[in-house]
Amino acid sequence: MVEFLRSNFFPKKNSYQLNKINSLIKEQILYKKKTHDFEITDISSLEKFRNNSVLFLDKHIEIEEVNNKKILVISNNQNNKKFYKNISIIKNLSNAYNLICNELFYHEDNSLVYDEYNFINGSHISRYSKIHNTVIIGKNCVISRGVEIGKNSIIKNNVVIKNSIIGNSVVICDNSSIGTSGFGFDYNIRGSNNFTPQLGVTILDDNVHIGTSCTIDRGKIDFTYIGKNSMIDNLVHIAHNVIIGKNACIAAQTGISGSVIIGNNVTIGGQVGFAGHLTIGKNVIIAARSGVTKNIKDNSVVSGFPAIDMKEWKKNIVRQRKYGHK
Amino acid sequence: MVEFLRSNFFPKKNSYQLNKINSLIKEQILYKKKTHDFEITDISSLEKFRNNSVLFLDKHIEIEEVNNKKILVISNNQNNKKFYKNISIIKNLSNAYNLICNELFYHEDNSLVYDEYNFINGSHISRYSKIHNTVIIGKNCVISRGVEIGKNSIIKNNVVIKNSIIGNSVVICDNSSIGTSGFGFDYNIRGSNNFTPQLGVTILDDNVHIGTSCTIDRGKIDFTYIGKNSMIDNLVHIAHNVIIGKNACIAAQTGISGSVIIGNNVTIGGQVGFAGHLTIGKNVIIAARSGVTKNIKDNSVVSGFPAIDMKEWKKNIVRQRKYGHK
Amino acid sequence: MVEFLRSNFFPKKNSYQLNKINSLIKEQILYKKKTHDFEITDISSLEKFRNNSVLFLDKHIEIEEVNNKKILVISNNQNNKKFYKNISIIKNLSNAYNLICNELFYHEDNSLVYDEYNFINGSHISRYSKIHNTVIIGKNCVISRGVEIGKNSIIKNNVVIKNSIIGNSVVICDNSSIGTSGFGFDYNIRGSNNFTPQLGVTILDDNVHIGTSCTIDRGKIDFTYIGKNSMIDNLVHIAHNVIIGKNACIAAQTGISGSVIIGNNVTIGGQVGFAGHLTIGKNVIIAARSGVTKNIKDNSVVSGFPAIDMKEWKKNIVRQRKYGHK
Repeated sequence: MVEFLRSNFFPKKNSYQLNKINSLIKEQILYKKKTHDFEITDISSLEKFRNNSVLFLDKHIEIEEVNNKKILVISNNQNNKKFYKNISIIKNLSNAYNLICNELFYHEDNSLVYDEYNFINGSHISRYSKIHNTVIIGKNCVISRGVEIGKNSIIKNNVVIKNSIIGNSVVICDNSSIGTSGFGFDYNIRGSNNFTPQLGVTILDDNVHIGTSCTIDRGKIDFTYIGKNSMIDNLVHIAHNVIIGKNACIAAQTGISGSVIIGNNVTIGGQVGFAGHLTIGKNVIIAARSGVTKNIKDNSVVSGFPAIDMKEWKKNIVRQRKYGHK
Repeated sequence: MVEFLRSNFFPKKNSYQLNKINSLIKEQILYKKKTHDFEITDISSLEKFRNNSVLFLDKHIEIEEVNNKKILVISNNQNNKKFYKNISIIKNLSNAYNLICNELFYHEDNSLVYDEYNFINGSHISRYSKIHNTVIIGKNCVISRGVEIGKNSIIKNNVVIKNSIIGNSVVICDNSSIGTSGFGFDYNIRGSNNFTPQLGVTILDDNVHIGTSCTIDRGKIDFTYIGKNSMIDNLVHIAHNVIIGKNACIAAQTGISGSVIIGNNVTIGGQVGFAGHLTIGKNVIIAARSGVTKNIKDNSVVSGFPAIDMKEWKKNIVRQRKYGHK
Repeated sequence: MVEFLRSNFFPKKNSYQLNKINSLIKEQILYKKKTHDFEITDISSLEKFRNNSVLFLDKHIEIEEVNNKKILVISNNQNNKKFYKNISIIKNLSNAYNLICNELFYHEDNSLVYDEYNFINGSHISRYSKIHNTVIIGKNCVISRGVEIGKNSIIKNNVVIKNSIIGNSVVICDNSSIGTSGFGFDYNIRGSNNFTPQLGVTILDDNVHIGTSCTIDRGKIDFTYIGKNSMIDNLVHIAHNVIIGKNACIAAQTGISGSVIIGNNVTIGGQVGFAGHLTIGKNVIIAARSGVTKNIKDNSVVSGFPAIDMKEWKKNIVRQRKYGHK
């Protein structure tokens, strides 16, 4: 698990005690329990439990580590009531997440995020970024606070990089946007002022190539990650929390929905789409224009929509055509 | 119907009398009739009849209001001859539209549009725009003449906004382009110098969220409109004259063709496409990767290409797969 | 065949004698033969044989012209051994291409390309570009070394143009990227530091219209070409080496894969995809959302994925639906 310091990217707005957090959502609290009051300055996810944080939990799951840390569990699931030492049961988890996160952090979707830029050679570079002196940066780029870029990386023109940690020898082509806000919202309450705060980062590992006009959204709480040597063509969309292994090859106009996990050595054709939260094995080949709706096992070759084994898909096509000539 | 003053966005090039307009297209006039000479300074559409304007009409339709205003009808449909008081029947409507509009207005696809920019905090802001002082604007943006942006809106980096009226609490993410030229051309005469002038605006209502690298084209004569609380993901294309109701949710890489009308509370998955000029009802759900080729009734759930009722689509898929195993 | 001087765009890094080229790849040379030592300063393709160049050849093909010029053939195909006067047989062609091209030229994917910019009216314009004085250029554009733009062309805002020759009356809309790096890589060795150098140009002929947020990659060795009067909508991707005839009309979000050749007067709907290296005839119509996997003959009308004759495709759809009601 890569570590990052959230406040490098999202400045702290307020630091609240557990009691104060509860008072923010008091109108919808159904039950609450606590061992003692402690400070809440961060958020946890099921992937990483952070001290002095709040963990938003929808499913019933009992995690010992949470009770061993200073973590306030906020859940809409009554079954979690018994197990956790510090817990508030509420009605609307999404609403509580938005409300609390908007109080704890400044983020770009609801406020000005404090930053200071130097205008260097035609691009705006945050004074709070760390860019290796071998990095080449084109014109009209914006590199925001907290961003780190490793040695020998090349950032072309009109690229926006925010909330990201970029490795060595990474190439990012023109007009791409890295570390942008994921599409986070509650189906029931829409509108920009109900937008779900996106407080994670994007991590591009060494030797990654990102094409032109791509959008790589950052994680919601943790990160979006693209592994070493992965190569991504133009106009590709990678949503929040996606994790891609090393040596991926992804052709143009493909879109990968939120929280998809992809193994090493995967080849994905152009204009492919993925449903959210899927797991794709290693060494998988996905033909162009496939629509992937289910998990895919290691070493599979799939095609079509819904994507199935490519041989079977071809048989289906031939059969459809044969009927057509009757 | 939202009102806007066309010349705020498209400066007047010439102001002609009706007679002069006819003389511009005299080579193709088959018939003409007029009550008296009057000034032509604007264009009308079937959605809005403006005084001192020309109305281009292909179908046969008799509209009393047109005769009660100072409107010159230009039509390639002989059936309109009798009804209208001021009418010119011509051969090629598209050619006449281009010729006349190019004479009446300066627009970005064939000339320099007069503007004056201030360079403020890394972005180019027109002196002829009206931006509420609470608006946050990132770097490398261009906000052109006539644009209005309401309070508490957030414009991120490298965003281009032209010919647009933006409401309150709207968020527009990096590298998106709002109010750009629609894809207007005559199938028979192609090339940038035969481009159909796009002289309308884009209207984003309050609380709209636009993702990264989206393109929202302006209306041809009237407007493209996105209703309150609508949320649009990355790399979405919305063509000219599209009207979207409130509370829409549209996932990444979807494209909505020209003049599609979409009701309230619609949810549209990623990589969906629409044929032009469709009407989509309210509360409709359109699954990811659907290709919508027909109007859709209220409360429908559709899927596939061509998009049909989702249950039926799933049955079809299962049946195709079953045959595949025979 | 359009001529261009490669060093206008890609400055020469080293100029090597044939012997030195061979020494660069000496570890993988299986066989070599030469008439005499000569200077290597350029690369050839099967479309154009240039003096003092190296030609990378995978297939067995015997070209007299190559032997009449100062060309070193580098091939992984033993059958070419006998015919060519100057030839080196090697194991890994892709690796040799990368290694040699990276030695001969500076290019944007592995080094800083020498350039000097003037900041004119909000855009960065290379001192080594040739832009007609009637050209209109918006804000935040980058126009790099070697680029030529003909009279009356319009470049809107936040456009990146590099390695391109643009004709007269061309319109390029906001946030588009022209002449960018194609997606060139070896399936077996991935990562940005194994990226295949893209050393050609993009040529847009007169009266071409390019929409918003398009990506038009340059040729690998020769060029990507879009013919006169062609009109391209928003978010369209055109890969390296694509050649499109005149009067094309291509709707939004379509992607054309590498080395596809398209005839004159073609109409292509939105969200269409093409497999690489296809040949599409003239006067072809390709319906929206088609996936084209085979060559298409002149005057065809196709639809579906895999794209077939549109009438047949419609029959298939009707039949599928009929079964659905049984």
